[in-house]
Amino acid sequence: MDATEFRRRGKEMVDLIADYLENIEQRPVYPDVEPGYLRSLIPEEAPEESETYEDVVKDIERVIMPGAASPACTELETVMMDWLGKMLKLPEDFIAGTHGQGGGVIQGTASEATLVALLAARSRAVRMILASDPQRPETGITSKLVAYSSDQAHCSVERAGMIAGVRMKKIPTEQSDKYAVQGETLRRMIQEDKAAGLIPFYFCATLGTTPSCAFDHITELGPICNAEKIWMHIDAAYAGSSFICPEFRPLLNGIEFADSFNFNPHKWLLVNFDCSTMWVRKRSDLIGAFKMDPLYLKHDHQESGLVTDYRHWQIPLGRRFRSLKMWFVFRMYGLKGLQDYIRKHVELAKEFESLVRADQRFEISADVVLGLVCFRLKGSNEVNETLLKRINNGRKIHLVPCQLSGQFVLRFAVCARTTESRHIREAWRLITQLAEEVMQELPH
Amino acid sequence: MDATEFRRRGKEMVDLIADYLENIEQRPVYPDVEPGYLRSLIPEEAPEESETYEDVVKDIERVIMPGAASPACTELETVMMDWLGKMLKLPEDFIAGTHGQGGGVIQGTASEATLVALLAARSRAVRMILASDPQRPETGITSKLVAYSSDQAHCSVERAGMIAGVRMKKIPTEQSDKYAVQGETLRRMIQEDKAAGLIPFYFCATLGTTPSCAFDHITELGPICNAEKIWMHIDAAYAGSSFICPEFRPLLNGIEFADSFNFNPHKWLLVNFDCSTMWVRKRSDLIGAFKMDPLYLKHDHQESGLVTDYRHWQIPLGRRFRSLKMWFVFRMYGLKGLQDYIRKHVELAKEFESLVRADQRFEISADVVLGLVCFRLKGSNEVNETLLKRINNGRKIHLVPCQLSGQFVLRFAVCARTTESRHIREAWRLITQLAEEVMQELPH
Repeated sequence: MDATEFRRRGKEMVDLIADYLENIEQRPVYPDVEPGYLRSLIPEEAPEESETYEDVVKDIERVIMPGAASPACTELETVMMDWLGKMLKLPEDFIAGTHGQGGGVIQGTASEATLVALLAARSRAVRMILASDPQRPETGITSKLVAYSSDQAHCSVERAGMIAGVRMKKIPTEQSDKYAVQGETLRRMIQEDKAAGLIPFYFCATLGTTPSCAFDHITELGPICNAEKIWMHIDAAYAGSSFICPEFRPLLNGIEFADSFNFNPHKWLLVNFDCSTMWVRKRSDLIGAFKMDPLYLKHDHQESGLVTDYRHWQIPLGRRFRSLKMWFVFRMYGLKGLQDYIRKHVELAKEFESLVRADQRFEISADVVLGLVCFRLKGSNEVNETLLKRINNGRKIHLVPCQLSGQFVLRFAVCARTTESRHIREAWRLITQLAEEVMQELPH
Repeated sequence: MDATEFRRRGKEMVDLIADYLENIEQRPVYPDVEPGYLRSLIPEEAPEESETYEDVVKDIERVIMPGAASPACTELETVMMDWLGKMLKLPEDFIAGTHGQGGGVIQGTASEATLVALLAARSRAVRMILASDPQRPETGITSKLVAYSSDQAHCSVERAGMIAGVRMKKIPTEQSDKYAVQGETLRRMIQEDKAAGLIPFYFCATLGTTPSCAFDHITELGPICNAEKIWMHIDAAYAGSSFICPEFRPLLNGIEFADSFNFNPHKWLLVNFDCSTMWVRKRSDLIGAFKMDPLYLKHDHQESGLVTDYRHWQIPLGRRFRSLKMWFVFRMYGLKGLQDYIRKHVELAKEFESLVRADQRFEISADVVLGLVCFRLKGSNEVNETLLKRINNGRKIHLVPCQLSGQFVLRFAVCARTTESRHIREAWRLITQLAEEVMQELPH
């Protein structure tokens, strides 16, 4: 949608809202639909090709209004999570509209998804142990639990451990292994911890780490977790969007071993912040961790199994209607449009990588798999820190650094909707110009 | 703002967004402002009288754009929380723009605020105990912690205890005490628990309970908590908005003893969902519970004390620009407009109460303090359950019930922006008509 159409459609939407509010007394206060009403009103999958704005907007009255805010908010979310799960070719277990026991939910951020998975894992571990040893005090169990994640994992994983009050151990990674957690390392840590009387219960794998977009080997790690009854959560906050492209989908191989999976369409799939999508293999594992049913939250379909009470799937109680954003984006771009968008960003990153590689003064610090390029001036950390400061002080581009094996590394991330090749070239021109300045000032 | 103005202003806003996006390359990528830049650009308090939409919207370019998304998002939030804190006449300790050590933050829901306060309290308790007994294992401390809340408290309080992995005890309340927690009861439970080797560390007081809008006696409870070094959190999710009116502000007396306080402007202060405002007496208590500082989140002002890193104040990492909603609402209504809005709802609830009291078949089940009326047919729970079902099946009004001292009670809540006296009278007409039907069907 270009600016001209945005102006027109935006104004139509303002009128639609005003009409709704002006005539609200003509609408029923409470919807008159049966559980599951929405699924039959829309296709089972996202469209391949883009649809027009008119097509989408006219469905608001047909699909949403009969179910008003609730249950439409819940039901559209369940179906949109299925649409997206199918785009990602998730195993059927994770799709709600199947005979599986899983499904998807929108969280606010990947941090929350990591925490929710950890809490569900903690609750499952305590239940399993109490089942075989009912007299054991629960706090005695919790104090023995141990969770794992890569030393490259996002800080929110460690933070989730702090919140849940459980040990979280960092699994060391190596540059020679491309900063991926190795099965052998995890296996050894589990054995050592078990020998020391601890109870391994949760492993957070990362697909696309924050520092260098590294990928843990989940095909290797998954079977270990399954054998040890350890909950494997996959955090693919950034990289997950790319898995809608067949050429990037192999990065998700091993998902069949996971208990939960999460990524952020708000990062790279054109859905506005916030929208962090999480799937679980077994709904009952999540619900078991949180369930509270006071009278003022009861409803007729409470125990019917027909409806999803997302309040049991998350930390907050209230919810926003975030699946509307997904519905509009998936239909107006179509799967192909979204794939094109991902591919373009990866191409732009590869273009930047070529520019770096062609310049002998620079080096690439990690494989460029998606839209992130980790690079640095050959030389000291100090000179790279100085370069970064100059770049960011210029306020034309903004880079966020990382540490890889003790080296200070610059990260060039392609992530804006409107980025074109000319922006890449202009950024590189600016970076090399500042690099020259910095290098000329160096003492010889 | 009426519908005609909404249409005009909404369309202007669409153009403003389109203009911004079309000319985005002319703007700096990173803002060039000093920490605290925003506070001096706007008044220290919300206006008494309403301002025009033009006044507010022209400040976007002047106040927000120089600070872009960040730090404007953070700084406006801090100042808006001060504005709202001053409307509530919170003690200076809770206001960031003073010499105090506290301040405010926007959470998504009251559930999150309760949890964040509980986690901060847990962390403070553990630190205090370790300070006097450094060899004591941390898990041994956690397993002895005990938190308290009213048996009338929202279910999210109990849930926060589950998430944090600590004991949460319900304090019994009585109808004769208007369902408020009594100081004597809390004091006795604390003494018993201490005698049993437990460590009391957190009390969640409720001002305006969900079932009946009851108010815990915080002037009595606060000193007990302070003396025992128990964190007192106040959950006023619904009732908090009313405290901007001098006649309702006494309900908040005792706030001077609290460590944290929360309510939901998205419930009753015309700010769209979500916006749950939380204040703490000591910023460092919250930050101590969550702080994580990886390189990719570091910034120049990290240790300066000049900036607020709200990511240390909450569960998620990412944040939305929710303070814009507060800024627009506070200015376009003015404090007086907001007070009028609260007062009108309370008057409408009192009008409904009078209608109930004038009908001998009905009884009022709890004091009507704000916009909630708890009522029932004199008679069995069954007849009231039947009546509720008839009312809700009619889909003209929607009531949510509660249990009070074993009685099934109907709750009439005035909470929509456009509710007028005619809606109250129409609702009562409908309720009495259905009550007659139900009573005629009763076996005699």
